[in-house]
Amino acid sequence: MQEMVQTIETLMQEQKWEDLKRLLAPKNPNDLAVLFAEFPPPERALLFRLLEKRLAVEVFESLPVEEQQELLGSFKTEQLREIVEHMSPDDRASLLDELPAKVAKRLLSLLTPEERQATALLLGYEENTAGRIMTTEYIDLKSFVTVADALKKIRRVGLDKETVYYCYVIDESRHLIGTVSLRQLVLADPDTKVAEIMETDVIFASTDEDQEEVAHKIQKYDLLALPVVDREKRLVGIVTHDDIMDIIQEEATEDIYRLGGLPLPEYSYFKSQALGVIGRRLLWILPMILAENINGYFIGQRTHLMQSVIYLAAFIPLVMSTGGNIGSQTSSVFVRGLALREVTTENAWRLLLRELAIGLVLGFALGVFGVAWAYWLQHNFWVALTVGLALIINALITTFLGAFWPLLFQRWGFDPALVSGPLISTAMDVFGLLVYFEIATLLLPWVLGIGP
Amino acid sequence: MQEMVQTIETLMQEQKWEDLKRLLAPKNPNDLAVLFAEFPPPERALLFRLLEKRLAVEVFESLPVEEQQELLGSFKTEQLREIVEHMSPDDRASLLDELPAKVAKRLLSLLTPEERQATALLLGYEENTAGRIMTTEYIDLKSFVTVADALKKIRRVGLDKETVYYCYVIDESRHLIGTVSLRQLVLADPDTKVAEIMETDVIFASTDEDQEEVAHKIQKYDLLALPVVDREKRLVGIVTHDDIMDIIQEEATEDIYRLGGLPLPEYSYFKSQALGVIGRRLLWILPMILAENINGYFIGQRTHLMQSVIYLAAFIPLVMSTGGNIGSQTSSVFVRGLALREVTTENAWRLLLRELAIGLVLGFALGVFGVAWAYWLQHNFWVALTVGLALIINALITTFLGAFWPLLFQRWGFDPALVSGPLISTAMDVFGLLVYFEIATLLLPWVLGIGP
Repeated sequence: MQEMVQTIETLMQEQKWEDLKRLLAPKNPNDLAVLFAEFPPPERALLFRLLEKRLAVEVFESLPVEEQQELLGSFKTEQLREIVEHMSPDDRASLLDELPAKVAKRLLSLLTPEERQATALLLGYEENTAGRIMTTEYIDLKSFVTVADALKKIRRVGLDKETVYYCYVIDESRHLIGTVSLRQLVLADPDTKVAEIMETDVIFASTDEDQEEVAHKIQKYDLLALPVVDREKRLVGIVTHDDIMDIIQEEATEDIYRLGGLPLPEYSYFKSQALGVIGRRLLWILPMILAENINGYFIGQRTHLMQSVIYLAAFIPLVMSTGGNIGSQTSSVFVRGLALREVTTENAWRLLLRELAIGLVLGFALGVFGVAWAYWLQHNFWVALTVGLALIINALITTFLGAFWPLLFQRWGFDPALVSGPLISTAMDVFGLLVYFEIATLLLPWVLGIGP
Repeated sequence: MQEMVQTIETLMQEQKWEDLKRLLAPKNPNDLAVLFAEFPPPERALLFRLLEKRLAVEVFESLPVEEQQELLGSFKTEQLREIVEHMSPDDRASLLDELPAKVAKRLLSLLTPEERQATALLLGYEENTAGRIMTTEYIDLKSFVTVADALKKIRRVGLDKETVYYCYVIDESRHLIGTVSLRQLVLADPDTKVAEIMETDVIFASTDEDQEEVAHKIQKYDLLALPVVDREKRLVGIVTHDDIMDIIQEEATEDIYRLGGLPLPEYSYFKSQALGVIGRRLLWILPMILAENINGYFIGQRTHLMQSVIYLAAFIPLVMSTGGNIGSQTSSVFVRGLALREVTTENAWRLLLRELAIGLVLGFALGVFGVAWAYWLQHNFWVALTVGLALIINALITTFLGAFWPLLFQRWGFDPALVSGPLISTAMDVFGLLVYFEIATLLLPWVLGIGP
């Protein structure tokens, strides 16, 4: 790519605009977006002007919103109007969403009344809902037209639509009554009525449905696009498969970050300001540190206990970490299970019980191991028993927390991943040690060999 | 759904097969798959027989491989042949892959020679490569035909193809020279030659390319399907967008499980045998437990140190967990960054250095906090300094490990997520405590107030 960048730079210096145009025209918009990122905004704006209008819009759309914003300042008003007006309404809505109100207003004023209306419609829905991510550029058909007429309509309006592979059949009040794919239209006899070949068992989303739910439907039914309807079941837009792939990746990133005890970056961790990243990461670590300080306080309170049996301290790492490890396994599995709809309201209780059984067996296995190891190390049966009992009880507590919290958070409408791995580990550090010390205190007379 | 299950059971008992047929025929195949899962295999096989052939195959294809296997035993040979023969080659290949060699052989023998060849072709490629996940059911065109002829061909062969939305243009030796979408064909003048409207800048994958790379290309270029070529650039198959969505989810699950310190289940954690799950989870926890035992050993060795300054023990949780928390943040970010291609070979060094700088600042902030907290708690400046220094050094070590390990593993061709969160936490438990004790030993004379 570096070669390409140099060629472009040379051509720009030599002002060979026609050569540059010819060089850029046959490229893929996504490749051009990557290429343009190598140039500072003023030169980038210039490169945009060399592209044919449709290509320029496609390149602009495939830039992340942050870079779109950066570029806006370098565009001349006319160039700006051309690009923003021809963006698809969903991409435009997410750009306007991020802009300062004043700039957004100025941009909106450049649009034709129809485009402005389409954008405002999308902006009226909540973020992360079907209404917000849908596009209004779909093809609708009436059920009484013939296949030949439908194909004629597609030829007439198809160029401006986000997908022509599905057409949506509506009645006079715009109620969605069926879908017909371009495949079906092409394969059918031209004189057939659309009503005869359309699918009437339509899968759709409503405007206020969560985007994760939309992604789930598109994936489950292997769709290229999903129609979106309003409360009166009138067709208002469609969500296409390419947007869904991005959403699937976004949601997975969200879960991975949350399980890793990280805040979500506004755009990309690696492109965010380092100082902002540090501030947000600190904010997420601090509660855990405070919890660990409570933990330190417990240990501090137990100095008399540890001074009498100093080798109790040797098992603090084992007891503290085992609970955390089992807990983050369980919470990872449940968070992912909820995201993939493997865990549902119907089977949640059964899976929770199964997980507790698994935790009990895991704890028992580790407990036996702990007793053996502790005995081998210190030759004190009662210390060994303390370690073993603590491991079993902690395994049970941690599997319960790791499975129950995500379920509870889901029920309450929060992101189940919020009860992340590190949070569970930290909670288990505190509980685990408490359990350990309580058992040790109970068994202390025997540990010291002065038991009854 | 329970209602539907009861209706079906009643109809089966009353042997009203025609009513059942009418009930099932208009349903969506994915919904039927979920519905059929409620019945035991023999009844399920019976229900399959009531479906029209094409629908039966679609329902069968949308079942997970494990359930397909279970069902095979209940099918009559003729039913088996019909379904397996009409499955798409890629779905059939993944089914055959999981079957015992004897059963697979028997199934292959039921196929027509052409179908057998297509399946064997796919089975010849490595798992998780483009060759294995592609289908051979695509539409190819010659460049010299007209749009009208192309559409005629699509009408003739389209019903059996996995997608008709992209056609692939090949020369006489089957080399891929272009693509043309159904959208372009429908919108173009019927007399145009395909050569005039086809895209010649084709994005493709080679058969041995990793499926993650394939997913990345489809997503980056917003494609519905990606052509797959052999070493001589001859077209051999296509990968479609619906398979890619499943792969994206699978890869995300893999990373989430690995970061959570979990083995990958063969199929689904929640549907796997509990005993197997316990065994595999234990195997992943044991190395961490052994490491914690080393840790315990260190503490055991330091009893003299702790007996002189018992309140050093109070900061063990803080020191142990902080490194782990920062480390799992860093490794989550880098593992995800590598998966999303945000971290590349070109920017890896720069991002590693940036991460170290972030780690240093984080460590410094936490160190200052640690000093203040420890001093407030114990009023001993030297203990406080020990805690603060340990936090800074640990933050540096852990950001280095959390960022460098995934990069190194990627370079070595392993899954970067293998150096998972819990593994880093555990390593940091050991390193972190070692650092703490070493600093404490160094500063001990001052801690005890007998320094020079």
